[in-house]
Amino acid sequence: MESPDETDGLLYEQVAEKIGGLIRDGVLRPGDRLPSLRRTSLQQDVSLTTAAQAYITLENTGLIEARPKSGFFVRFQSMLPEPGLSRPSASAVLSGSSDIVSRVFTAAMNPKIIPLGAAYPGADLLPVKKLHRTLAAISRSAGKSAISYDMPPGCEPLRREIARRSLDWGTTLPMDEIVTTCGGMEAIVLCLRAVTRPGDVVAVESPTYFGILQAIESLGLKILEIPTHPRDGMDPDALEKALKAHKVAACLAMPNFNNPLGSLMPEAGKERIVSMLAKKEIPLIEDDLNGDLYHGNERPHVARALDKKGLVMLCSSFSKTLAPGYRVGWAAAGRFHEKVKKLKFTNTLATATLPQLAIAEFLKNGGYDHHLRSLRRMYASQVQRMSRAVAEHFPAGTRITRPAGGFVLWIELPKQVDSLNLHDRALAQNISIAPGPMFSAKNHFRNFVRISCGNPWSGRIEQSIATLGSLAAKLIK
Amino acid sequence: MESPDETDGLLYEQVAEKIGGLIRDGVLRPGDRLPSLRRTSLQQDVSLTTAAQAYITLENTGLIEARPKSGFFVRFQSMLPEPGLSRPSASAVLSGSSDIVSRVFTAAMNPKIIPLGAAYPGADLLPVKKLHRTLAAISRSAGKSAISYDMPPGCEPLRREIARRSLDWGTTLPMDEIVTTCGGMEAIVLCLRAVTRPGDVVAVESPTYFGILQAIESLGLKILEIPTHPRDGMDPDALEKALKAHKVAACLAMPNFNNPLGSLMPEAGKERIVSMLAKKEIPLIEDDLNGDLYHGNERPHVARALDKKGLVMLCSSFSKTLAPGYRVGWAAAGRFHEKVKKLKFTNTLATATLPQLAIAEFLKNGGYDHHLRSLRRMYASQVQRMSRAVAEHFPAGTRITRPAGGFVLWIELPKQVDSLNLHDRALAQNISIAPGPMFSAKNHFRNFVRISCGNPWSGRIEQSIATLGSLAAKLIK
Repeated sequence: MESPDETDGLLYEQVAEKIGGLIRDGVLRPGDRLPSLRRTSLQQDVSLTTAAQAYITLENTGLIEARPKSGFFVRFQSMLPEPGLSRPSASAVLSGSSDIVSRVFTAAMNPKIIPLGAAYPGADLLPVKKLHRTLAAISRSAGKSAISYDMPPGCEPLRREIARRSLDWGTTLPMDEIVTTCGGMEAIVLCLRAVTRPGDVVAVESPTYFGILQAIESLGLKILEIPTHPRDGMDPDALEKALKAHKVAACLAMPNFNNPLGSLMPEAGKERIVSMLAKKEIPLIEDDLNGDLYHGNERPHVARALDKKGLVMLCSSFSKTLAPGYRVGWAAAGRFHEKVKKLKFTNTLATATLPQLAIAEFLKNGGYDHHLRSLRRMYASQVQRMSRAVAEHFPAGTRITRPAGGFVLWIELPKQVDSLNLHDRALAQNISIAPGPMFSAKNHFRNFVRISCGNPWSGRIEQSIATLGSLAAKLIK
Repeated sequence: MESPDETDGLLYEQVAEKIGGLIRDGVLRPGDRLPSLRRTSLQQDVSLTTAAQAYITLENTGLIEARPKSGFFVRFQSMLPEPGLSRPSASAVLSGSSDIVSRVFTAAMNPKIIPLGAAYPGADLLPVKKLHRTLAAISRSAGKSAISYDMPPGCEPLRREIARRSLDWGTTLPMDEIVTTCGGMEAIVLCLRAVTRPGDVVAVESPTYFGILQAIESLGLKILEIPTHPRDGMDPDALEKALKAHKVAACLAMPNFNNPLGSLMPEAGKERIVSMLAKKEIPLIEDDLNGDLYHGNERPHVARALDKKGLVMLCSSFSKTLAPGYRVGWAAAGRFHEKVKKLKFTNTLATATLPQLAIAEFLKNGGYDHHLRSLRRMYASQVQRMSRAVAEHFPAGTRITRPAGGFVLWIELPKQVDSLNLHDRALAQNISIAPGPMFSAKNHFRNFVRISCGNPWSGRIEQSIATLGSLAAKLIK
């Protein structure tokens, strides 16, 4: 049962969501005055306190502002336009390696550096103490079994919790189909290895997470970048065209909140892509790492929910929502389950036992949903504030995404700005960013950067955005 | 500083080792009476208590026996002969897959089954509580950093402890060369991937651990089995011949206590193999998983100590000595370090943070050396007792190894015995064993089995050996 406090929380969130939706849909426009608190309380049939809580929430996320003695108004939002559909070149390539990745990772470990580069969840947002306490308690009660191997498919209580939660994603994963892994990266690598051979072509979103590009490259596979829309994700027409021109062994995508775009593929897009791939018997590796981090009202469904042939291999982890350092991920690989399980044996034998048990317990009894609600609110608010700061400080001609989930922003700078150059200058000022070419096997996106909003908003971060803006402006002249 | 208790321990162990050596060398023979306690105390210049402790140790390991009112006598040892040099066929193959492996692993998880199949250390022999307490304490003190990613090369305190300990192995590993991994299996996979491409040939000992064979197979590599001696390990002459006949991309071996043979490659053998491979610039992946589990007096050196060209990639883990379920291993990959580090990023991104920190702390302050001494004594004694039971219960014509370290026995049954058949019959009686063909890519060793001595000796285990013996006898007729 939920506590009264949580029920209240749900209520004011619902009101805030409703009003936020009106703003996003353009029914309420920048400068419009909002209904008074009394009116909102009557309209929505909630207490004055709840109405006030809803307004405070909207103010925190930057959608509205209070003007003394005048009431609440819709803020003038970031007026920066969005980037367009990506247009990668249409050939499949073996990607070159890039030292920039390890420089971005290293920077993230240095406490002197403002970490806008790597997309890590800020440890301040995670239930560190509670999770560690859970782990300590389990190590005492589980004793010997917690020191022993946990052989594939992996921790049963954890697989049960994942299967239970999959109802929220529009599907019902059988727990026996889930294989737990050392983080989401291993899940994706095992799925790739299960369905490809070196030399094969893998279709991916353009841009996509650099770690995935490196993993594909390290397996001797070729990368085919598919044009991707910053709001709607991988373009089904473009994929259709690519499938005609290339023999594609697998498609790898993040329909729910691509990293770096934050795009959310509409249900119709998911349907088209799943059925298009099914017709050709091409597996879809669906990376749902960010699926729980929606900014809107509803948990989007996974593409896997539309799978009729066992071709969608669903992967995720707890690294962005709970505990990056616990290294716990999983794959539900459909008809390739046995292959993935066997590869798990030969890749790392087993996943660490205790971290899995601790996460399973936290999911069951630790208030994971409550944590996720507050995490989503924080990420959404941090993304909003960062967007506003970018609009304020970056040079004219800058474009910015409207992520529907996750915690990164994808920024298109004026053509003259070389983001690798900007990266070096920013790092000299102790600011780390992720330059655009990292997100393409062909070094597209030369004038793009990805900015992480994983850490709580602060003056230090705002200052670093101002610095980035003026560094970028200098590169234009 | 060591406690007085530990110093005493060392002393009686030294005496026991000296006498044990005389027995093993045949100076003292079965049935011989040992010198009286008083005489031993004078000869060895130790107290009577220490002499008695030494004799008790020898009795526990089954080398000697007390006869009431007569004194101590050398026991009639297992009179079973040893198996000979293996003679695998001389072609390189892509191994087929084998379901038997997952059946053996699954059986090991079932508490109803006597686990003589999988080579797991018995949890009763491990410092479960102490290690878990260390982990709980670290989760409290490290807090946020323990929930964050620990990026490659991995946990610095752990790499420092490993580097410090490498002095005992005849070498000095620079801590910056070490990359921590999700268990020893990942270390080996990363090394293999760093130096081979699909289709390449990898030379391995015959027999060798099935997990390694499966890993090589899963990477699309060909396996070349090299004749291996049950005492001296991989045969240098045979390797030399194979290198002339085949283009070998890498050699993978366990010079210290091959699994399943328990063989220890003599120093001269290590020298020959390291220099033979160096001449052809072929990397040696040295799996030292069992290196700390010597039954003799001294920690054997690693082949890596003889490496002058950065070609020996040393791998190990804490899965056989401390905590299988913590999944912590490492690789020191010589000139291939950067490649291995980069592959670690793309394979699992990072190793779980807390288990690494806990092991580092245990190595530093937890009495790891003390634990290892007692673990070695237990393993040696369990191997001895198991050998005797096999000698007593198995049919005539059985041969058995004399492992110099580790905790498994490799048993050659009379030719008529099909070990896969024996496996099925044993499992029907709730006894799990590892049939010989698992240890060869070509299904050699049809009449061999590997028996794990990882669990404390018990009547239940003795009974299961008797059952195995009579099942084997039935298969002969």
